[in-house]
Amino acid sequence: MQVQINPSGALDLLSQLEVEALKRSSTSEVYRLFRNCSLAVLNVGSHTDSSSEIYDKYQDFDINLICRERGIKVELLNPPEHAFVDGKIINGINEHLLAVIRDILFIKDKYQDGKLNLTSASHITHVVFDMLRNARALKPSEDPNMIVCWGGHSIKEPEYKYTKEVGYQLGLRHFNICTGCGPGAMKGPMKGATIGHAKQRFTDNRYLGLTEPSIIAAEPPNPIVNQLVILPDIEKRLEAFVRTAHGIIIFPGGAGTAEELLYLLGILLHPDNQKQVLPVVLTGPESARAYFDELVKFVKDTLGEEALSKFKVIIDDPEAVGKYFAQSMPQVREYRKERGDAYHFNWSLKIEPEFQLPFYPTHENMANLNLEIKQPTEQLAANLRRAFSGIVAGNVKDEGIKAIKRHGVFSLSGDTSLMLKMDTLLSAFVAQGRMKLPGSVYTPCYKIET
Amino acid sequence: MQVQINPSGALDLLSQLEVEALKRSSTSEVYRLFRNCSLAVLNVGSHTDSSSEIYDKYQDFDINLICRERGIKVELLNPPEHAFVDGKIINGINEHLLAVIRDILFIKDKYQDGKLNLTSASHITHVVFDMLRNARALKPSEDPNMIVCWGGHSIKEPEYKYTKEVGYQLGLRHFNICTGCGPGAMKGPMKGATIGHAKQRFTDNRYLGLTEPSIIAAEPPNPIVNQLVILPDIEKRLEAFVRTAHGIIIFPGGAGTAEELLYLLGILLHPDNQKQVLPVVLTGPESARAYFDELVKFVKDTLGEEALSKFKVIIDDPEAVGKYFAQSMPQVREYRKERGDAYHFNWSLKIEPEFQLPFYPTHENMANLNLEIKQPTEQLAANLRRAFSGIVAGNVKDEGIKAIKRHGVFSLSGDTSLMLKMDTLLSAFVAQGRMKLPGSVYTPCYKIET
Amino acid sequence: MQVQINPSGALDLLSQLEVEALKRSSTSEVYRLFRNCSLAVLNVGSHTDSSSEIYDKYQDFDINLICRERGIKVELLNPPEHAFVDGKIINGINEHLLAVIRDILFIKDKYQDGKLNLTSASHITHVVFDMLRNARALKPSEDPNMIVCWGGHSIKEPEYKYTKEVGYQLGLRHFNICTGCGPGAMKGPMKGATIGHAKQRFTDNRYLGLTEPSIIAAEPPNPIVNQLVILPDIEKRLEAFVRTAHGIIIFPGGAGTAEELLYLLGILLHPDNQKQVLPVVLTGPESARAYFDELVKFVKDTLGEEALSKFKVIIDDPEAVGKYFAQSMPQVREYRKERGDAYHFNWSLKIEPEFQLPFYPTHENMANLNLEIKQPTEQLAANLRRAFSGIVAGNVKDEGIKAIKRHGVFSLSGDTSLMLKMDTLLSAFVAQGRMKLPGSVYTPCYKIET
Amino acid sequence: MQVQINPSGALDLLSQLEVEALKRSSTSEVYRLFRNCSLAVLNVGSHTDSSSEIYDKYQDFDINLICRERGIKVELLNPPEHAFVDGKIINGINEHLLAVIRDILFIKDKYQDGKLNLTSASHITHVVFDMLRNARALKPSEDPNMIVCWGGHSIKEPEYKYTKEVGYQLGLRHFNICTGCGPGAMKGPMKGATIGHAKQRFTDNRYLGLTEPSIIAAEPPNPIVNQLVILPDIEKRLEAFVRTAHGIIIFPGGAGTAEELLYLLGILLHPDNQKQVLPVVLTGPESARAYFDELVKFVKDTLGEEALSKFKVIIDDPEAVGKYFAQSMPQVREYRKERGDAYHFNWSLKIEPEFQLPFYPTHENMANLNLEIKQPTEQLAANLRRAFSGIVAGNVKDEGIKAIKRHGVFSLSGDTSLMLKMDTLLSAFVAQGRMKLPGSVYTPCYKIET
Repeated sequence: MQVQINPSGALDLLSQLEVEALKRSSTSEVYRLFRNCSLAVLNVGSHTDSSSEIYDKYQDFDINLICRERGIKVELLNPPEHAFVDGKIINGINEHLLAVIRDILFIKDKYQDGKLNLTSASHITHVVFDMLRNARALKPSEDPNMIVCWGGHSIKEPEYKYTKEVGYQLGLRHFNICTGCGPGAMKGPMKGATIGHAKQRFTDNRYLGLTEPSIIAAEPPNPIVNQLVILPDIEKRLEAFVRTAHGIIIFPGGAGTAEELLYLLGILLHPDNQKQVLPVVLTGPESARAYFDELVKFVKDTLGEEALSKFKVIIDDPEAVGKYFAQSMPQVREYRKERGDAYHFNWSLKIEPEFQLPFYPTHENMANLNLEIKQPTEQLAANLRRAFSGIVAGNVKDEGIKAIKRHGVFSLSGDTSLMLKMDTLLSAFVAQGRMKLPGSVYTPCYKIET
Repeated sequence: MQVQINPSGALDLLSQLEVEALKRSSTSEVYRLFRNCSLAVLNVGSHTDSSSEIYDKYQDFDINLICRERGIKVELLNPPEHAFVDGKIINGINEHLLAVIRDILFIKDKYQDGKLNLTSASHITHVVFDMLRNARALKPSEDPNMIVCWGGHSIKEPEYKYTKEVGYQLGLRHFNICTGCGPGAMKGPMKGATIGHAKQRFTDNRYLGLTEPSIIAAEPPNPIVNQLVILPDIEKRLEAFVRTAHGIIIFPGGAGTAEELLYLLGILLHPDNQKQVLPVVLTGPESARAYFDELVKFVKDTLGEEALSKFKVIIDDPEAVGKYFAQSMPQVREYRKERGDAYHFNWSLKIEPEFQLPFYPTHENMANLNLEIKQPTEQLAANLRRAFSGIVAGNVKDEGIKAIKRHGVFSLSGDTSLMLKMDTLLSAFVAQGRMKLPGSVYTPCYKIET
Repeated sequence: MQVQINPSGALDLLSQLEVEALKRSSTSEVYRLFRNCSLAVLNVGSHTDSSSEIYDKYQDFDINLICRERGIKVELLNPPEHAFVDGKIINGINEHLLAVIRDILFIKDKYQDGKLNLTSASHITHVVFDMLRNARALKPSEDPNMIVCWGGHSIKEPEYKYTKEVGYQLGLRHFNICTGCGPGAMKGPMKGATIGHAKQRFTDNRYLGLTEPSIIAAEPPNPIVNQLVILPDIEKRLEAFVRTAHGIIIFPGGAGTAEELLYLLGILLHPDNQKQVLPVVLTGPESARAYFDELVKFVKDTLGEEALSKFKVIIDDPEAVGKYFAQSMPQVREYRKERGDAYHFNWSLKIEPEFQLPFYPTHENMANLNLEIKQPTEQLAANLRRAFSGIVAGNVKDEGIKAIKRHGVFSLSGDTSLMLKMDTLLSAFVAQGRMKLPGSVYTPCYKIET
Repeated sequence: MQVQINPSGALDLLSQLEVEALKRSSTSEVYRLFRNCSLAVLNVGSHTDSSSEIYDKYQDFDINLICRERGIKVELLNPPEHAFVDGKIINGINEHLLAVIRDILFIKDKYQDGKLNLTSASHITHVVFDMLRNARALKPSEDPNMIVCWGGHSIKEPEYKYTKEVGYQLGLRHFNICTGCGPGAMKGPMKGATIGHAKQRFTDNRYLGLTEPSIIAAEPPNPIVNQLVILPDIEKRLEAFVRTAHGIIIFPGGAGTAEELLYLLGILLHPDNQKQVLPVVLTGPESARAYFDELVKFVKDTLGEEALSKFKVIIDDPEAVGKYFAQSMPQVREYRKERGDAYHFNWSLKIEPEFQLPFYPTHENMANLNLEIKQPTEQLAANLRRAFSGIVAGNVKDEGIKAIKRHGVFSLSGDTSLMLKMDTLLSAFVAQGRMKLPGSVYTPCYKIET
């Protein structure tokens, strides 16, 4: 099977120089990454969260760029069939494919011209902003209305239904949704909001998906996502989440969700962010009450009492969640206005480099993580974030899975009391089936040394 | 609770004369009808299909028109709460409420000025067209893409899921959906199409709901319906269905669905319609195979072999249904073009007066129905249609239920062999729970005299 | 030459009944009117203001409606060539042609069904509103911004330039323009506003032309007019002007302009309209100062001092005109709001029947006009209005010209002092060349008996 | 007078890095350029074509950027008053001001990052494309419809009227217009097209203005221009013209127009461009016949017979001009399609470096120009183009005027016969008043050495 696709949107106006650069890129070392991300978005609806499994299944898939003076065409060889209807690619998936070209190939050179210093806080933030803007994911004229939803890709039916109901309540209140754009808690709120938006005749609806190359295959973007941005790494993706958010919801989830919560709290606890107005809600159905109790306890024990003031827990009440955000938006707006800050991007949120610089979860880096309780709260949050990030990699990311296969499980060590707390939390995630999609037996990729 | 609502759309430009006429109407004998229909659209999401139950529950509900020089406002007293979000009416429901004012109050005088003769075929068709046009439900520039979906309001979960999947496949192929706008098979295809449309970035999506005053409470329009028309009676509603349809799907259903099928076949069997291109598909999941076998057998036994050539049965294959309509549309278009007929309204379809003139299912009219097998096929179809129509009234319509309470069940008599066939079919509907929403025990409203 | 044209807009959705009614109409007694108005809009850009001359020139022009199930087509035989570009009709002229069908043929029956009483004030107003609405010329969501411009069709170059400059200043201030849609002072403001709108990137611009069958040939609508309404008679046209206006400008002109001013003052002097906020400006270049002095004197001498408080005279200052309207709009808005009146139609303006009922300027009616100074001011204004109206008819209207040919000039008689004043004013119009387009020698169609 | 302006469009989404860079730029050495160009667009409607005169008059004008987290604001001190209406800047001028910021300040760094080589043909073309794209002046989905109009800024009334009539005929045929955006032949076609577009209800109209910093003050963009691009130098501006053109018109003009014609012919005579389809028309009213005779003679005598085949002369027939382009467009389209080239940018047009590299008209460079008749035609065209370019600079550009003041007139020398021809042509321009706006006495800025 061989299909040709015409780009439209961001890539329909390319200069000859750019077309040639794209051609070169698409045959260079980034090609593998490009091909894999393309496969990931075409393979939406698959029922596995193992990247390597997907790559194995579609070994004969290939993608080429065909260049003419007028611009490029995309040629697909043996693409997954369900991306097509009667031989024509689904428009939403076509858009995602072009987002891959844009974010992986096209933008590649742009940040490597020597003018940007990718270890500088302001330069990193510039890149995050520039990629969102380039994807037309920032709307300068809109009032605050973007709710970021975090939560597990592997959640049980009642939890999934609950995320849909929350999304519905948000949609009824004209909120837009941003998620990591995989299945589970990343899809539910968007589906719910779709119905809410339809009932309200809200047509400027935005379903913003933020992903990154190493997670995209395990958590492929649902075609409902109508703005897809593939940030270069997990840290820029997290920064994109918190700077576009006017409110954040944390649904039940596993290691990835814990990573996100710790990242968020580490930032909000920074003295410069004390006055920031960013409503955060942890919510789930009655059946998830124990889960949140445990998570809250872990936060309190590690980051302290103050951290609890940064969020609100609402159990089993989707309408209350919707109302809380609706009531908070005037303050969000007021704060931005006072600060002279934009509504579409939270420039004034202070993010320290330890939350911005990429963490590579090698066995060595994981083993060397400082997990002592006696360190500044912010440092501790940063290190705990890294630990959970590594576990996600070991669970579902291609590179991580391969590393574990080769070198055995990650070893995490530190303060005994802290280690015990982590162990408790992680064991609960395992017991509740939050680490992997149901159907697969979960083998931990880590060992807590106590 | 007291709420005021501003109209927008069809009613935002009224003359003083019209405002005064509306005011008079809203205190006149049509007021009861107007109030009940308003309640029905506000009461969406309720879990009963008994009109009288709903009217009982909201006895203190009231609706008033407030008239100013600039136009009207709508005042609601004690409306159902779930039509509101944080005190504001859901926009979709607001639109439906205005559709009620437009179709029940505003248009009332228009057809009673003596210029129209409501027993003339061409005048009746004019009214059907005029009401659809007035509701902006006809799009002259669109290619054929409207699929009418019929089927039961009370169907089991696997059947409901199936209607969603079919809707999804239609949505992926850029089809719009028209239904009777109640729950079950009338809601599923719209929900499915919503997702398909979102994936295809199809934004001109139309979810056309056609209803009539006596059915609206039992089958209230879901807010997804973004064009609602309340035709004056069941026969005009059926005519609106077949004249706007570019294709028709029949899902499993009860007496109402049988009524629709018989109506459709009665028309398509007319010699003048022999060359009409109107693809019709009966479809359902594997579990509905027996149902369709029975129905097809009944059609064959009553209307004959030729009737079977007017439709196609597809079991358990939503994609095949989508493909079939996609492949048929060029012929639909071609036929209309050749005939000089419009795409948006099938003027050339011949409909005889016996299918246009209202049938009032009184006990007497029901008892007098000619149900002899020996009559012209078309007559037989018309009379069988009336019989099923009466049973629907006895099951869910306010007036019908009251009549049954007062006078006992309807008596149907005729040819023994035919009576036995009807009895078999109806008994199957009852056994399969297709007569009433689950939860209620069904007591037949008819007796077959054999 | 034979051309076929497809309608779009108001006439693209017709029922069979309507198509048949149109067909009948287009062969009936209104056909002549329909044909002549069609010819008038096709003949835009011609250089004569004599209707009969135009009709003579294009005797072989014909227009037919071709009816199919899908709707109508318009067939033109020997139409004026300059309505076409490379064989295709100019879109703006196509729209005007459809406005003729809509307002002359289609709407014909509507007001003759016995439900309307065309001698009742409220019913006449309903018709005016209904025709404007039907032409989509009323925008309920817009703030007050419609300036009606009156003035002569035959004005000299400096005056014409001045009307363009005033239009430009209005356009820069986001005002829309409404005129009688002929040449001269009816075209200049629209052309000027077009440039002002372009500079302000104002794209919702409306150039509303209000005309009537007897004037349309002498003053054909310029294609800039993007909303054309052909009211049935001069009185309904005048009512449409004053009810859609948020402000009125009177440029120099002849008998028609005097008619308009007297109509307006007659209404504004009504006690019920005392609080009405409707800014009126008489304006022209320095060279027109004497003209306005004379006009103002006539008003003062006939309608009294109070009438002068109803308008403002601004000489040679287009920017001041623009600013005055810009500053007045908040009060216009405020008044409508307080009254509960609409912005798009001034319902609360009181118009007495003597200003609404058609006046037929036969020789007898003209001779019988009560032109005594001793009558209520409003009556006097109404009668003077009629006198000038008759003179316009005698100057440029087909019927009027024919009547004068047959029976000689109109005779006007009354109070000597008033007769002298009229004579002075009319002689000035003649001397200044305001009665007819330059090039033609003007022969008065009236005689003032003193 | 002090005014603050909010950007919208291209500059409403800036990152902090960009805002800071802008701030730095606006206080750096480019600041003077930025200020002067800003003044130029604000000063539209002035009645001089001497840049230095304008800069003298507004010495107290200043412009600042105010930076906040949300983005920038523009502060104006003592701006020309006629850019404002009732204290608010005209939207079209606001857009032009933002185009100055975008093209002068914002884009500045972009082409100096070492990745582009501004002496390479393909890199220069990339810059031209990138600036047009960045200004959203390229529409990938449009059919060929852009007519570039060249001609003098100082032309007499009948010629100006003629350019309007040609513009009107183009507008009636749905053509868009691109000019150098000054007065005279650069404004007329746009004004004419505006009326043509209005009559055709053509709302996607584009009035593309291409200018460069040294000419913008002498020929400020009329606010009708709704897409303004300020290319860095005259050569990139010329390249932008010929690559966006689907057809080119040359109206009467002076040295600048001669420069444009020679540039165009130099390119079209290149062997690689032999099959290019680019219709070119020289046109003017009857009174300009002699002018064109002279120009054509000069071309024939210098570039040879073949050059005459590259264009068509049409005297006094605006409609014929419109028709010719309308008839040519299918071939333009066909050629692009065959070549795989874009409609919105003529990539396949070969332009040699001598037409791309900036020529600085210093006294030395002017004196050293090779103006011998014996050189390859293309070289000759390039050098003649430079000679005329220098004369334009000496006539109206700030730097040129100053240089002439300081060092006396330019000296041009070469082949005697060629020198005589140039002298004849230039003398004719002077005699016809084409060198400077009427009112000023023209003193030649050059001397032809023979």
